[in-house]
Amino acid sequence: MSGELRLAGYAKAEAERIVTTLFDWLRIPSISSHPERAPDVRASAEFCARLLTEAGLENVTLIEPPVAASGGDHPGPAVYGDWLHAGPEAATVVVYGHHDVQPVDPLELWTSPPFSPVIVDGECRARGAVDDKGQVLYEIEAARGLLAANGALPVNLKFIIEGEEEIGSPHFEALLHQEAARLACDVVVVSDTGMIAPDVPSITVGMRGLVAFDVTLVTSTTDLHSGIFGGTVPNAARVAADLVAALHDAQERVTLPGFYDRVRDLSAAEQASMDAQPFDEAGFMAAAGVKALVGEAGFTAIERTSTRPTAEVVGLTGGYGGPGIKTIVPATANLKIALRLVPDQRPEEITAAFEAWVAAHLPPGVSATVVPEGGVAPALTPVDHPAMGALVRAIERVWGTAPLFTRSGGSGPEEALGRVLGAPVLFLGIALPDDRFHAPNERMVMSQFWKGLLAAGELLVELGG
Amino acid sequence: MSGELRLAGYAKAEAERIVTTLFDWLRIPSISSHPERAPDVRASAEFCARLLTEAGLENVTLIEPPVAASGGDHPGPAVYGDWLHAGPEAATVVVYGHHDVQPVDPLELWTSPPFSPVIVDGECRARGAVDDKGQVLYEIEAARGLLAANGALPVNLKFIIEGEEEIGSPHFEALLHQEAARLACDVVVVSDTGMIAPDVPSITVGMRGLVAFDVTLVTSTTDLHSGIFGGTVPNAARVAADLVAALHDAQERVTLPGFYDRVRDLSAAEQASMDAQPFDEAGFMAAAGVKALVGEAGFTAIERTSTRPTAEVVGLTGGYGGPGIKTIVPATANLKIALRLVPDQRPEEITAAFEAWVAAHLPPGVSATVVPEGGVAPALTPVDHPAMGALVRAIERVWGTAPLFTRSGGSGPEEALGRVLGAPVLFLGIALPDDRFHAPNERMVMSQFWKGLLAAGELLVELGG
Repeated sequence: MSGELRLAGYAKAEAERIVTTLFDWLRIPSISSHPERAPDVRASAEFCARLLTEAGLENVTLIEPPVAASGGDHPGPAVYGDWLHAGPEAATVVVYGHHDVQPVDPLELWTSPPFSPVIVDGECRARGAVDDKGQVLYEIEAARGLLAANGALPVNLKFIIEGEEEIGSPHFEALLHQEAARLACDVVVVSDTGMIAPDVPSITVGMRGLVAFDVTLVTSTTDLHSGIFGGTVPNAARVAADLVAALHDAQERVTLPGFYDRVRDLSAAEQASMDAQPFDEAGFMAAAGVKALVGEAGFTAIERTSTRPTAEVVGLTGGYGGPGIKTIVPATANLKIALRLVPDQRPEEITAAFEAWVAAHLPPGVSATVVPEGGVAPALTPVDHPAMGALVRAIERVWGTAPLFTRSGGSGPEEALGRVLGAPVLFLGIALPDDRFHAPNERMVMSQFWKGLLAAGELLVELGG
Repeated sequence: MSGELRLAGYAKAEAERIVTTLFDWLRIPSISSHPERAPDVRASAEFCARLLTEAGLENVTLIEPPVAASGGDHPGPAVYGDWLHAGPEAATVVVYGHHDVQPVDPLELWTSPPFSPVIVDGECRARGAVDDKGQVLYEIEAARGLLAANGALPVNLKFIIEGEEEIGSPHFEALLHQEAARLACDVVVVSDTGMIAPDVPSITVGMRGLVAFDVTLVTSTTDLHSGIFGGTVPNAARVAADLVAALHDAQERVTLPGFYDRVRDLSAAEQASMDAQPFDEAGFMAAAGVKALVGEAGFTAIERTSTRPTAEVVGLTGGYGGPGIKTIVPATANLKIALRLVPDQRPEEITAAFEAWVAAHLPPGVSATVVPEGGVAPALTPVDHPAMGALVRAIERVWGTAPLFTRSGGSGPEEALGRVLGAPVLFLGIALPDDRFHAPNERMVMSQFWKGLLAAGELLVELGG
């Protein structure tokens, strides 16, 4: 079947160059959360710009995030490039991805250095391999392959490759507003998600939203001697623990008042697809490195990680953390909470609910500072949208199987893309569940990469009508 | 009245030299919990030995803690010295104190450097000022003053000044066993506690015991992406928080099964003294820097901090602690718990109860490693013991008021002293509640120091009959 695919020959002929290119890009440690890596994030953007130019894209440029003049941060530039010669009747497609990567701690758990990519057992191992440089690269190569074969593309194509996704896309929505004219389109293709298994292709139709909070609790002006004051003064670490413990009920439901009010039921088509998904519990647990699954009563592990909202404590710090014991009553504690949202929960409402909940749960004499750390609304593309049909056909042609519909449990700027650009968002992603996103030994399975390249080409043809 | 006190003239005449000596000792940063400070702990021991020799004590020597050959720690030497010429009929008294000090973090909160002692507003400010170098010094000077005046002491006197008290006296009981013959005595005087207020002298008749635990929880082999796995895998930080939250019930009682079984009611004399204690709630809260008092229902703040057992979380660490948010599910968390014990709770029973409780409260798939960090039994000296009468008279003579009986909420090696040496333990201590033990800006009120010197002299005379 792959003989019919438009880019099969191109992928085979260009494989060596493409892998070399991937490795060169992965060697750039473009960690957006580390200010001292700002030059590397810029180098990664310039590398990406060169790839776009070499592919035949035009108007290639770096776009600086619209940072407020007062901001002390280190913006990571986005990369833009387009090919707009398909004519006014042809569809205009924006491809989104990102070129920044996560930190690599704990470094000692990597089996090979995170910025020295290798291919072992058919997997490319490196930070950014699948999240997201590898997935951006097959989109660029698909365009390059079609241009090389035909001198033209079936659609007007625009790339916007972000440089701040791994720090929560703090300026991306402002960038979209600023560049709305240049990014005007009929459909957005996001290349930053995954599928169920190599032999179970699937299409993400939604992503969860995210609101996160940094909460600092203060009970005293100083740590206190537990022998003198312990037992009768508030303990900041205990207050933090009590807050965390109170955030879920016995059914593992989030206790914020109104948290579930706007959660929309799945459509029949989505629920059917969800029920048809295979789930290898042992494999999932092995990939997670856990010995038990937990979570909201009445829902499966797949639902808990994709269609259900959650609250996770991502950090908890209070008192003495060194070796041994120090007999103090901690005066301060910090707690970081990330809430994943699903349609139609609204970040601003959940933020208000969280802030009110913390205030209501504070014991007397304890002060709390709640700092919201970004907000992303959940995103959902209807499964019966015509553009979705194009993606279904492209994937079925490459994988030989009709894809299931799934939702991603992750959160990204996709909601803003769809909303600001007023276009449906299609998710073409080839990552697998055990690709170790954000963790040591991130990998990309190369057979998935090559299929991603083929599918990206088929999709452009399908969208071109 | 002070005109009658035996050491009043000595204290006045020697004041300048004594303060200079105190400052010189306080300049030595003898932090026993920092291995790199081991040479300073040794220098402090040598300084103390010189003081004993200059005072007229004999057989002055450093005693190395009996560390197991396999131990990788850095023992802080104890200091011994004696004067044994009062005759076989005279009482033999052991004076205990310690010359090591707590760490000084957070350094930025000190108003003057912790190892550059100053006297401001009648207070000596430095790490170790009151805990415990200042309190050891007035004992040494009392002996020196009596020897200078009379060429003899009314009792046979032995000093044992420990170098590992601030790390929980890990080798002190073994040292006591090893040196039991040399330390044989009729009564132990501990100089490491405090009193209610400058005008409300009091005698500590007991100290709480302490068991502490370092608990490491593991839920996965690696931190996990909260978008992919969050909501259905155990979260180590949440498990830690849930354990902390479960350790107290709604009445703020500790929930370990059997925790209160051996807690002994106060004697009538003790309860009467407890009820007579003034309590300045506003002053206590100001000293603690807190805006509310909490604790076990049915007991006063004084009782909660002295006669009641407690559980405090002294450290809680899990997940991401840097700036902003990292969207992970933490795979490991650490939690440190210190339990203060009162008569007749037994450290080994409470340790077993805690370990069983952790095991019973672990969710499926979570592993826990519980490391006990030392154990000290509670100590109590009967208020009707004859030696206690001697201490009552000594304090009443110096302060002009009969002392109340109190208990210290802190924990020390005093229980082992009394048990191993088979002698009653008297607590002569002049620290005040807001002396900032273990905290920035530790201080000693100098008027209390001079009274301590006078009382130490009176006590030796009283014990000499």
